[in-house]
Amino acid sequence: MSLFRLGVSSGARVWGSAPLSAPLLSSSRSHSGTQLGKREQNLRMCENGAQQPILTLESMNPAIKKVEYAVRGPIVIRAVELEKELQQGVKKPFTEVIKANIGDAHAMGQKPITFLRQVSAICLYPELLNDNKFPNDVKQKARRILQACGGNSIGSYSASQGIEIVRQDVAKYIERRDGGIPSNPDNIYLSTGASDSIVTMLKLLVSGHGSSRTGVLIPIPQYPLYSAALAELEAVQVNYYLDEENCWALNINELRKALNEARKHCNPKVLCIINPGNPTGQVQSRKCIEDVIRFAAEENLFLMADEVYQDNVYAKGCAFHSFKKVLFEMGPKYSDVVELASFHSTSKGFMGECGFRGGYMEVINMDSAVKQQLTKLVSVRLCPPVPGQALLDVVVNPPQPGEPSYKQFMAERQAVLDNLAEKARLTEKILNQAPGIQCNPVQGAMYSFPRIEIPERAVKLAQAEGQAPDMFFCMKLLEETGICVVPGSGFGQREGTHHFR
Amino acid sequence: MSLFRLGVSSGARVWGSAPLSAPLLSSSRSHSGTQLGKREQNLRMCENGAQQPILTLESMNPAIKKVEYAVRGPIVIRAVELEKELQQGVKKPFTEVIKANIGDAHAMGQKPITFLRQVSAICLYPELLNDNKFPNDVKQKARRILQACGGNSIGSYSASQGIEIVRQDVAKYIERRDGGIPSNPDNIYLSTGASDSIVTMLKLLVSGHGSSRTGVLIPIPQYPLYSAALAELEAVQVNYYLDEENCWALNINELRKALNEARKHCNPKVLCIINPGNPTGQVQSRKCIEDVIRFAAEENLFLMADEVYQDNVYAKGCAFHSFKKVLFEMGPKYSDVVELASFHSTSKGFMGECGFRGGYMEVINMDSAVKQQLTKLVSVRLCPPVPGQALLDVVVNPPQPGEPSYKQFMAERQAVLDNLAEKARLTEKILNQAPGIQCNPVQGAMYSFPRIEIPERAVKLAQAEGQAPDMFFCMKLLEETGICVVPGSGFGQREGTHHFR
Repeated sequence: MSLFRLGVSSGARVWGSAPLSAPLLSSSRSHSGTQLGKREQNLRMCENGAQQPILTLESMNPAIKKVEYAVRGPIVIRAVELEKELQQGVKKPFTEVIKANIGDAHAMGQKPITFLRQVSAICLYPELLNDNKFPNDVKQKARRILQACGGNSIGSYSASQGIEIVRQDVAKYIERRDGGIPSNPDNIYLSTGASDSIVTMLKLLVSGHGSSRTGVLIPIPQYPLYSAALAELEAVQVNYYLDEENCWALNINELRKALNEARKHCNPKVLCIINPGNPTGQVQSRKCIEDVIRFAAEENLFLMADEVYQDNVYAKGCAFHSFKKVLFEMGPKYSDVVELASFHSTSKGFMGECGFRGGYMEVINMDSAVKQQLTKLVSVRLCPPVPGQALLDVVVNPPQPGEPSYKQFMAERQAVLDNLAEKARLTEKILNQAPGIQCNPVQGAMYSFPRIEIPERAVKLAQAEGQAPDMFFCMKLLEETGICVVPGSGFGQREGTHHFR
Repeated sequence: MSLFRLGVSSGARVWGSAPLSAPLLSSSRSHSGTQLGKREQNLRMCENGAQQPILTLESMNPAIKKVEYAVRGPIVIRAVELEKELQQGVKKPFTEVIKANIGDAHAMGQKPITFLRQVSAICLYPELLNDNKFPNDVKQKARRILQACGGNSIGSYSASQGIEIVRQDVAKYIERRDGGIPSNPDNIYLSTGASDSIVTMLKLLVSGHGSSRTGVLIPIPQYPLYSAALAELEAVQVNYYLDEENCWALNINELRKALNEARKHCNPKVLCIINPGNPTGQVQSRKCIEDVIRFAAEENLFLMADEVYQDNVYAKGCAFHSFKKVLFEMGPKYSDVVELASFHSTSKGFMGECGFRGGYMEVINMDSAVKQQLTKLVSVRLCPPVPGQALLDVVVNPPQPGEPSYKQFMAERQAVLDNLAEKARLTEKILNQAPGIQCNPVQGAMYSFPRIEIPERAVKLAQAEGQAPDMFFCMKLLEETGICVVPGSGFGQREGTHHFR
């Protein structure tokens, strides 16, 4: 459940008899992966003599069929249908569909940060530089970004790696965050949201066939971008389970077990970490991060650290530690050799600017020849969206004390973070009051991933309809209360347990 | 050569002796594609005892190594270096580097269209709705877009297929363009530039192994996004040569020859067309499009029509005909069966808004189960950049006669198109005056692709340096005149001929 929509009553008749119609977006795995041979391709006729399409479920890329992405899957399609039915006056037990399926801050009423939008607006329409209503620091920031754009227009392509001054500002931001540990702008790649660079890194890393095929360790539960990208790339997904009993902590023994098991059938060489956790909301301790880095060094694993929720830490006693900072503080034995890519985004934090698709990746200890390949690869898509790059620049280079926009910026920022922290506390509290629901503390990020007890009778009903029990639960919840959450099976969970996000 | 920078003297000493240092971004194909086996992976030590990185040229995804994208390749990297050298005061035979390598209108001084930017600025900073300086039709458009965004903010995620009203407006725009032939918003997918949806379509279409592997017919010369995407997807690139002697026209016999040849070793099932042509600037006749559609129907080929330059037609007697319109005018024998995806972008036309990464694809006769797969696939990346979607909406839904912004909008639009038409004429004329250069008329799009005679001595010098002769030419041109163009080898050309774009 997303933090944004907390406080709405969750409805009682969860196990009622509302009709259920779940359009199946993600393909069933029963479609065979066989290809149309040349002969069939030339004779593609149906039995009734009509011509078959060239592109069908049978002839399409079988790897794409295996891709699943529950966050926008069947449950969300049904939610959109319900919204339309409500608009058409169809009577429902609710008056509004509440989309708690995704961390989409503005859609849930969070207001944009004024400073970010003022600078962006001037970048788009530089005539506003003559408008007295905009403070001087806003104009200075906008002018500086425009000067770094070809023809001083945000409508030009940027360098494929991103605008140089934005990359410089990102590097300085990382240095401030990490207590002065140097960051090189050449190691910064701007991206179309964080998803873009996560997939790009995986693309570079995947190789080999059969038992030499690259294996990628991902947490379970995970953010399903990872499983989706691995399916598409036909890489081997290697699951390591987070410890629900221990507030979803990462357990090194579990990691080692998963790795050793995987080595029997693939070549595991990448370890993905999501910290703070999505969908699980835990914040990794410094000790745990050290352990992971040591483990990666010993076991020759490339580290991918998804740190898009780095500004979203709420629980007392918890703090965000970047993998890069911990790596460098562990000394050259580690910082000279461990390969790391870290990801950040404008979509989360206090900004919540999902629509801009802004983000960056920092790569550490990447082989220089591979970096050239990476630069070449991203150049094929020309450049990340420039309005998103401009917005990212303002995020990493905010107003300073004494500047006209400073006070308002800080007040707006704090209000958003306080609000999210309060919702995190409320989520845990309210969910734990509901019978049959158990929820770990939401230490950070934007979600809770409560465990639900599903009665035997409901499990059987779900099985009879060919649905995962938690999908059955979420569909019923949606049909009867209008609340749209995502079943745990979309993120992964221990066999026999059920959750939702 | 891009049209944007015409009129600059092209320098005389092309074959002088300036030092040449071409950093090689695109990998040499000599790197072996072998994978690190598990044993090596666990013992990855260099001879001197130092640890080898996990991700190296040898261990990385071999398909990515084969990707090449000349438009932003070594020549552009050298151009950026030269710009820095000029800034540092290094003496050069020129005072400015002219980047004619890419169709980047604003970077070359083209001014943004006021109406597009005014609406966009309000979408970003809705406070401007209270500003009297903005005309009412601007405000109405912005308000309508904002109302279609979650929480009325452009910072929300949109539906993965794109904002519904934008898709509706795109469909209406296509209907107007095509003389009333219906367009269904459900068949419209908004995208991150056109590149994004071109790659997505190819991804869906590729399957099979060995001689059943999907073959994709692409024109030569081509826009290298196609060859790059096919390399990444490990699909079979099937070249059909455009007829340079006939103003780069598409010749059906050549197409048939290429197809029949390809059927011996792969399963060709996709035919890509670029009209108006990139890099070749031809505009296809209606007759030729009919022939292509008939050919696709007979030979069971899925049609991909790259129509991003549809507003850029300059030559007298030439007109843009969309594949969709021609298809439907050929009657149900074709319009009921031929599968077609057509692509458009905000980056070209009169807008030139490359940085926004806006675009759309329309799919015709796509199997409904495959459409579900497509919708699922694009959902993994959440949504195209929303500022680009908003801009696209204004492009397809411009001011109407009588509205306050109409006159200025039309005047600005026409000025840009007239300017491009004039440059197209000038490009052809000036290039054909230069000895050793032959240039076809630039009927449309934004480039010319002149043929150059390279003297035997220069060919030998190039070979001695291990360079393609046209790369050698372009590097010399850059080093001696500051003009950055892209060698024909990056787009493909008939063996023994040399060109640049």
